[in-house]
Amino acid sequence: MAIASCNKGAGDNVGNRIIAMERAALDRWGKGDVNGYLDLDSTDITYFDPALEKRVDGLAAVKKYIAPFAGKIGISHYSMIDPKVQQYGDIAVLTYNLVDDVIRTPDGPVNITIRWNCTQVYARIDGEWKIVHNHWSYTRPDLKKSE
Amino acid sequence: MAIASCNKGAGDNVGNRIIAMERAALDRWGKGDVNGYLDLDSTDITYFDPALEKRVDGLAAVKKYIAPFAGKIGISHYSMIDPKVQQYGDIAVLTYNLVDDVIRTPDGPVNITIRWNCTQVYARIDGEWKIVHNHWSYTRPDLKKSE
Repeated sequence: MAIASCNKGAGDNVGNRIIAMERAALDRWGKGDVNGYLDLDSTDITYFDPALEKRVDGLAAVKKYIAPFAGKIGISHYSMIDPKVQQYGDIAVLTYNLVDDVIRTPDGPVNITIRWNCTQVYARIDGEWKIVHNHWSYTRPDLKKSE
Repeated sequence: MAIASCNKGAGDNVGNRIIAMERAALDRWGKGDVNGYLDLDSTDITYFDPALEKRVDGLAAVKKYIAPFAGKIGISHYSMIDPKVQQYGDIAVLTYNLVDDVIRTPDGPVNITIRWNCTQVYARIDGEWKIVHNHWSYTRPDLKKSE
């Protein structure tokens, strides 16, 4: 594609680097530290998750939404399943399935497994990879009524 | 960001063009025509929706999954809510909320409303915009048990 000629030093290791960044953010999230992700988020981030009525736009709005989860999430173990990075120059689209063993939610201690579909669009901005879009959804949610 | 200097003629109208392409695909989907989306999909597409156990990779696999829906979907009306296009050179990340008035599913006639979160990552490949990643999920799914 046209963008390939613009590739500025993106190497084969970009995929591994993106995945390592994501794992580091997941590690922190599972300990109740919300800043792993917030520090990666770009100012122009757009964000979806299943608890929201609609998309959240921009870092300030995402921070306002995510910050109250600080210290209220516990994940004893997670599996990042089959992470894939599609790189197009300074954009890298990371997708994976995630299985979380959750031991704490904002409602208190639990012992549940939550399965996620995850999309993270990273952009290299001033040499630094940042998340410009994030979409979390449940894998095969068990709905009350058929949709 | 670094990529900006590589921008090859992307104009302010790219956002509108991407949204128009998406609407055309939605129009066809709502009439049971699956090829609106399949014709837009890139060979390297990755795909999530809530019915899948895991991500589907590549056009052949997506076609195999989507083709059986041909003629089995009916949507009488849809609202694309607040579409946003984040353009980074030859990549455009389209996100929106969607409200579908569904009158037919593969299980038969229905009269239901389904609300979606949608991510479409378009890439300009050889001058043509194609979908390289697609993530569909339910907006606030009504779960049987708390997740």
